Amino acid sequence: MSQPHHLKPSSSSPNHTIPIVSTSCTAARSTPCFFRAASSFCLPSSSSSSTSSLLSLGRPLQRRARARRGDAIGCVPSSAARSSETVPSSSRSGSAVDSSSSAMAGVRGVRATATIKVTVSGFLNDLRPSRVIDNIKDLVGRALNLELVSSDLLDAKTGKEKPTIRSYAHQVADNDDEVLTYEADFDVPASFGAVGAVLVSNEQQRTEMFFVDIKLSSSDGVEITTIKCNSWVAPNSGDDAGKRVFFANKPYLPSQTPPGLLSYRKKDLEQKRGNGRGQRKSTDRIYDYDVYNDLANPDSNADLARPVLGGSKQFPYPRRCRTGRPATKTDPKTESRGGDNYVPRDEAFSEEKLLQFSLTTVQSVLSAVVPAAQSALIDPNLGFPSFFVIDKLFEDGVKLPPAEQLGFLRSVVPRLLQLLRDSPGDQVLLFDMPANVQKDKFAWLRDEEFARETLAGINPYAIELVREFPLKSKLDPAVYGPAESAITADVLEKQMGHVMTVSEAVKQKRLFMLDFHDLFLPYVHKIRALKHTTMYGSRTVFFLTSDGTLRLLAIELTRPKSATQPQWRRVFTPSTADTTESWLWRMAKSHVRAHDAGHHELVSHWLRTHCAVEPYILAANRQLSELHPVFHLLRPHFRYTTRINAMARSALISAGGIIETTFSPGRYAMELSSAAYANLWRFDAEALPADLVRRGMAELDPESDHGLKLTIQDYPFANDGLLIWDAIQNWVQAYVARFYPDAASVADDVELQAFWTEVRTVGHGDKKDEPWWPVLDTPATLAHTLTTIVWVASAHHAAVNFGQYDFGGYFPNRPSIARTKMPVEEPVDAAAMAAFLDNPDQALRECFPSQVQATLVMAVLNLLSAHSPDEEYLGGMENVPWNDDEKVRAAYGEFHARLKEIEGIIDGRNRDRKLRNRCGAGMLPYQLMKPFSQPGVTGKGIPNSTSI
Amino acid sequence: MSQPHHLKPSSSSPNHTIPIVSTSCTAARSTPCFFRAASSFCLPSSSSSSTSSLLSLGRPLQRRARARRGDAIGCVPSSAARSSETVPSSSRSGSAVDSSSSAMAGVRGVRATATIKVTVSGFLNDLRPSRVIDNIKDLVGRALNLELVSSDLLDAKTGKEKPTIRSYAHQVADNDDEVLTYEADFDVPASFGAVGAVLVSNEQQRTEMFFVDIKLSSSDGVEITTIKCNSWVAPNSGDDAGKRVFFANKPYLPSQTPPGLLSYRKKDLEQKRGNGRGQRKSTDRIYDYDVYNDLANPDSNADLARPVLGGSKQFPYPRRCRTGRPATKTDPKTESRGGDNYVPRDEAFSEEKLLQFSLTTVQSVLSAVVPAAQSALIDPNLGFPSFFVIDKLFEDGVKLPPAEQLGFLRSVVPRLLQLLRDSPGDQVLLFDMPANVQKDKFAWLRDEEFARETLAGINPYAIELVREFPLKSKLDPAVYGPAESAITADVLEKQMGHVMTVSEAVKQKRLFMLDFHDLFLPYVHKIRALKHTTMYGSRTVFFLTSDGTLRLLAIELTRPKSATQPQWRRVFTPSTADTTESWLWRMAKSHVRAHDAGHHELVSHWLRTHCAVEPYILAANRQLSELHPVFHLLRPHFRYTTRINAMARSALISAGGIIETTFSPGRYAMELSSAAYANLWRFDAEALPADLVRRGMAELDPESDHGLKLTIQDYPFANDGLLIWDAIQNWVQAYVARFYPDAASVADDVELQAFWTEVRTVGHGDKKDEPWWPVLDTPATLAHTLTTIVWVASAHHAAVNFGQYDFGGYFPNRPSIARTKMPVEEPVDAAAMAAFLDNPDQALRECFPSQVQATLVMAVLNLLSAHSPDEEYLGGMENVPWNDDEKVRAAYGEFHARLKEIEGIIDGRNRDRKLRNRCGAGMLPYQLMKPFSQPGVTGKGIPNSTSI
Repeated sequence: MSQPHHLKPSSSSPNHTIPIVSTSCTAARSTPCFFRAASSFCLPSSSSSSTSSLLSLGRPLQRRARARRGDAIGCVPSSAARSSETVPSSSRSGSAVDSSSSAMAGVRGVRATATIKVTVSGFLNDLRPSRVIDNIKDLVGRALNLELVSSDLLDAKTGKEKPTIRSYAHQVADNDDEVLTYEADFDVPASFGAVGAVLVSNEQQRTEMFFVDIKLSSSDGVEITTIKCNSWVAPNSGDDAGKRVFFANKPYLPSQTPPGLLSYRKKDLEQKRGNGRGQRKSTDRIYDYDVYNDLANPDSNADLARPVLGGSKQFPYPRRCRTGRPATKTDPKTESRGGDNYVPRDEAFSEEKLLQFSLTTVQSVLSAVVPAAQSALIDPNLGFPSFFVIDKLFEDGVKLPPAEQLGFLRSVVPRLLQLLRDSPGDQVLLFDMPANVQKDKFAWLRDEEFARETLAGINPYAIELVREFPLKSKLDPAVYGPAESAITADVLEKQMGHVMTVSEAVKQKRLFMLDFHDLFLPYVHKIRALKHTTMYGSRTVFFLTSDGTLRLLAIELTRPKSATQPQWRRVFTPSTADTTESWLWRMAKSHVRAHDAGHHELVSHWLRTHCAVEPYILAANRQLSELHPVFHLLRPHFRYTTRINAMARSALISAGGIIETTFSPGRYAMELSSAAYANLWRFDAEALPADLVRRGMAELDPESDHGLKLTIQDYPFANDGLLIWDAIQNWVQAYVARFYPDAASVADDVELQAFWTEVRTVGHGDKKDEPWWPVLDTPATLAHTLTTIVWVASAHHAAVNFGQYDFGGYFPNRPSIARTKMPVEEPVDAAAMAAFLDNPDQALRECFPSQVQATLVMAVLNLLSAHSPDEEYLGGMENVPWNDDEKVRAAYGEFHARLKEIEGIIDGRNRDRKLRNRCGAGMLPYQLMKPFSQPGVTGKGIPNSTSI
Repeated sequence: MSQPHHLKPSSSSPNHTIPIVSTSCTAARSTPCFFRAASSFCLPSSSSSSTSSLLSLGRPLQRRARARRGDAIGCVPSSAARSSETVPSSSRSGSAVDSSSSAMAGVRGVRATATIKVTVSGFLNDLRPSRVIDNIKDLVGRALNLELVSSDLLDAKTGKEKPTIRSYAHQVADNDDEVLTYEADFDVPASFGAVGAVLVSNEQQRTEMFFVDIKLSSSDGVEITTIKCNSWVAPNSGDDAGKRVFFANKPYLPSQTPPGLLSYRKKDLEQKRGNGRGQRKSTDRIYDYDVYNDLANPDSNADLARPVLGGSKQFPYPRRCRTGRPATKTDPKTESRGGDNYVPRDEAFSEEKLLQFSLTTVQSVLSAVVPAAQSALIDPNLGFPSFFVIDKLFEDGVKLPPAEQLGFLRSVVPRLLQLLRDSPGDQVLLFDMPANVQKDKFAWLRDEEFARETLAGINPYAIELVREFPLKSKLDPAVYGPAESAITADVLEKQMGHVMTVSEAVKQKRLFMLDFHDLFLPYVHKIRALKHTTMYGSRTVFFLTSDGTLRLLAIELTRPKSATQPQWRRVFTPSTADTTESWLWRMAKSHVRAHDAGHHELVSHWLRTHCAVEPYILAANRQLSELHPVFHLLRPHFRYTTRINAMARSALISAGGIIETTFSPGRYAMELSSAAYANLWRFDAEALPADLVRRGMAELDPESDHGLKLTIQDYPFANDGLLIWDAIQNWVQAYVARFYPDAASVADDVELQAFWTEVRTVGHGDKKDEPWWPVLDTPATLAHTLTTIVWVASAHHAAVNFGQYDFGGYFPNRPSIARTKMPVEEPVDAAAMAAFLDNPDQALRECFPSQVQATLVMAVLNLLSAHSPDEEYLGGMENVPWNDDEKVRAAYGEFHARLKEIEGIIDGRNRDRKLRNRCGAGMLPYQLMKPFSQPGVTGKGIPNSTSI
């Protein structure tokens, strides 16, 4: 959800006093330190210590006077609202309300102060156009209607609700450019009961309003509560249907909902689910499902036709957020791609995020770069003329051609590059030096780094134990050739220096592999039919040395037979005594790296985090009320995901988009991720321990830490990841225990069950019949399921995302594509072979991404690897979403403290020279599981959500 | 000898007719094609076909008329000369002389035409100063006196010589700016007999004259013979002692000297030997010996004191050419270093060579660069800030600091770099991209290239067979610690992948080593006392794989104990699974490379070629007459060596010179080469076959080609070198056979024996008692000895010289120095270790040569690797020094043809992919033993002599 914040820390300390409903206290969002606030906050004795609030005595009265003058000049007095019934509040906790200075007996004076953020930037508008701000200011007076909702019913038997108490809010002039303050006064009868929610109606014609919060205070200025909103409210075109409810912050299981709020709870979910029809507009708040049918653009170009992903046996896929655009003319199953991809309004980026992400320029990458790259002005297939020119991207910068040729790169996100003025008129593109190159320019050439990165790089999800030998394909031998790998025991034993046999090595769990055979093999000939790319199936085998490191033993590259060619495959091995073999080995490694880069982006990153999480978000918003404790728990972990995914559908994974343009599989990239979803994805294995066990990288062992014994002791991702997993699990278990005392409370939670059913049968509906879906029938299964979701959205994503520039920015270390075949592939192309022998350096560069591809990927990786200034970290205190429950707060405090502790543990591990997979000469320390970070490209930090 | 040529090919075909003495024909130096000339040349029938000569009928008369006018105007007619006795020539071969149109009966008219090259540039003068040319022209008239010398005696009994016939020569005006022509006319009585020589007296006051040749022709213009001179004649300050003899070209053993020439033969040698006293001046022609006592400069700076090399047991060394300068004030044993180092006048570089070498700028490197580098303006110890900056030297060029800081680099030889104008005022230094980097930027990082270069690089003289294990030092264990290496069988067997035991490997001749242990160990602590350098003893062990390539197994670095430290040593091994070990291995390799670079320059290159050859040159010039056939044979192989060695003493190997400034041993560099001379150098092992056998790289085997069986079949240097060795040997044997019919003729050759005695007892006098000196007692021993000398001066030098820029120009492949210790050396410097772990890339660069060192070495290597435009190649036809002897010419023709054939054989080998040490991906083909080359840095070509 979009939560613009970074409000200037106000001088008001978190203060308030009189809770309504059972909310005992409310932390102001801008509190710099949670603990200080909390400790002075929940003690009744502190209730009288609030002095510096904007609502402190005296000043509010002045403001009110001004507001009234406003009324008199430009607005109709809201006499209707003032004449509403009022009843005394049911001050359960007994408090300042009783001591209010209301003049009317049995009636309290209550003031609602709404803080509206002055930011009306849409995705496509310039930031802060003063015109629109002025519009808002012009429209004050009858812009905003507020209604207080009672938690109680008028009549419990009939279910009749109490009438709301209504008032227009008036803008209070304020010098703060960032927020506008509106005030409304209510006379609340003692019989009204607790205020359970506020209804908001934006009465303007066109202008959305972003509600930061609504404070309720007594008429003498003592704060009663603050309802956090952080939500856009669109103009109310109708009446009730256009009103927006903001519940007070306390969560309730459905069965425990205060009766006065039941209908609002239901109605709000109905609103968010929408009716499933029509095209969504940007101000909508509707969460609905659709298949991935908006990546293609067949109307523009037949080459941009793509199959629909999701909803079919051939291409199963998770669901995306429905946008409802009309079908293309060419293909009724494909949605047309006009405009920006819709996301529900509150999924939008904050201004800070937006500024950093700089959507307009990223859209340039989509709309300008790619076509420009494909224009005749620059050859998109031109490789780098030398490694020196590659280095220049980081060292001296590259002088850009005239803007009309490469203007797109000049418009890429400012942080991404520095435009240096070499001499007037010249613009120089300079990329940040990736961290790995800073410390060791040659790391990418070394086998040990290749191996190490399978354990401590950005795709630690691919390495697996060899459990049987010889390696075997599961593909149909009739179609793809012999299942058995050409990697023989002889080959491996020679490379192992004959220290043991292969069967001993398998028995001792000393052999590991990257198996990119079955995933890619079916696509080899399709991809080879494309220009400027190629493909193999690959298997890469490693040996676990007695030092605990992996040694590369062999790479097998396979081209399956086709209608016109026989199968070709060859096993390459490291050579330290034959130059040609050594270069072939380097080329083979480059192919495997491209396979790994594809597997990483398409599977480990996109599919398993971004794509798989979106259905949880849709289902949660559709089925879990904002009053639901699980919604409260999950909401931070869904921040920005829908938005970033919509952008990905526009620019990255779309037909002709950046992924297709720059990765080996080309137009088959997304089909491949669908194949991975079909064959590899299962919810239960998304939990880190299960994932490790599944890959043979760990076995269950109650004696060991985390209940797991790692196959490779020094597996930095697993070691650190398990600390994070356990921390999340402990926190989630405590949270679940707080709300679910027993199995029945889980099983009977209708919203929860509806949520989970929708995840299984709709969002991941193509997998609905899988047996492995957990059943939410106990607090334990619920906690495990929620832990898995939180893990995937936060730590799994961080593990595969924030090191992308560090490891891939210097693209020779992780080329996104291998463009040329191995020179020894039969039938051997004599000219290519001769060219390879003459200048293998050039042959390698021709296999590498082209200049355009490399530059594009570098730009994107830099963008994706950066933390936004408004990043919210796992267990962080930036935006604690619960503050009204001792137990939850205590558990969260422990969670936070544990993550701080983990930070230190990880630092210690990175200094431990015995851990040779993370500490060594010129080695990037493994920091991707360190929870916290500064903004920018830091190679660490676990945000709550998959937000970039 | 200095032979300025590159005369413009004259329109005169080689022509002449009437031989005098027994010379039958003479090839003009400027003949573009030897065979064409030769074939039309030695047939009597062609004698009348000479028509286009400058001496053809008619034109000479016109010239003569002009010359006579000159006489009348400015010169005293040489009536005295004309009135000399004349006798008819003894026209042995019967010829045109008889048909001459001499008017006087019994008297022939003979004209001598001397060609003087218009070049008066000395080393220190600007080229072609017109002032001096004008001086020459002004001085014509009585500038040049010529005398014809008869081969016969006047009286055989008394030994009385016939009087010479004398004439002044007069300059003939000529539009050719490059040569001046002088003519003198003689009336030769029939009784005079054959003209065996011409005496020349330069009667000018100050100006040297460079004689290209002297043509003798009959007065009607028919050429009789051409005496090739190619020699400087200094002004004749006295009378007879100042005259210079030029013998007709036919060689004679001393015992066969025509009697009329005997005294001239003797006198000329006496002149060249000099009296051993006084300081030599640049116009001298005296060859004498001295020790290396002119490298130091103690008067200028106590730090520049150095021991005398040569003449002591402590520092044995070959002798250099005596210059006779006074001793320094500080040290009576050290010669002062004023001015340019003297070399005999004809050893000077030709103009072409000089231009290319650009002495003045090389002297800048000496006199400007080094002090500038040591000034405060640039830090001479500053390493490269990144590998990118290293690459920039070749790619973009490096913008030079202001000239006052780095002016010296701007003045380095023009060919060496291109000064590009980036923007006005900016100068950019751009080095040529070394050939190895062009094809494979990463070759230097790979073990296989390290190993391959021991067989096919520029120091193929260091690798040797491991014949016993464990490896043992021959140094005193009491001083240097345990003799036995720390490289154990375990270590090696693990690295060999346990394919065999070490003892099996030794037995099968599969283990090889670079043994830089005993050579460097005694210097380790001395060198470590210097700043900015370090040293270890090192042993590097290789395994011969079944592919025929060498695999690096281990490197041992040793610091011996000292007064304050215990012994430290450690064995490093390749790692493909541990990053820190991998970096330590890379650092260890860099140390060994620096050791190899030092061994290469100080031993394989300087000591064994340049330095060891100089005594042969001195002895040959002092003891072998220019009439001696062995002098004729050897002369081309001595070209420029004395001069380049004198330059080396000035700039390279001098105290504070480039070698000391840029190589690890610093001020101990030359002491180390003396130690190598003491312990390793022996004449008999300088023959390639013996050298290979000595290192265990071959064994004698009559069944095999060359009578040798190579231990490593694909040892490119040995395989190609043996082809060259055999070709030289065949040629030398044929030549020796032509002049020495039997053992007695060798043993009785007084000049030859004197030559060899002087080589053994004076030039290499510090080795005079060695038992291994060959005795010249048969044609076979003579031929073997001469073959060895020719091999060393030509092919050995070429093998270690002309690849220097290709392999060392990118200095990371061959750093000249390792400046920092291994970070793991005990006691470990914690800060250095931490810095290494944090950024090993930088640690390596800090170990590498500094920017100043690297740039200086690159400049020098580029210079040394380049062939001059006037290069004369082994077996080449550029300047064939024999043309009067059918047998010799036939043998030389075969030699030439064989070398052309070898060129093709080598090309074939370089295309043979089975030869993995010379043909493979990105591999520099091994071309250093290809005999011919274009000018410039080509990585091939075997010049006749050690001339650069």
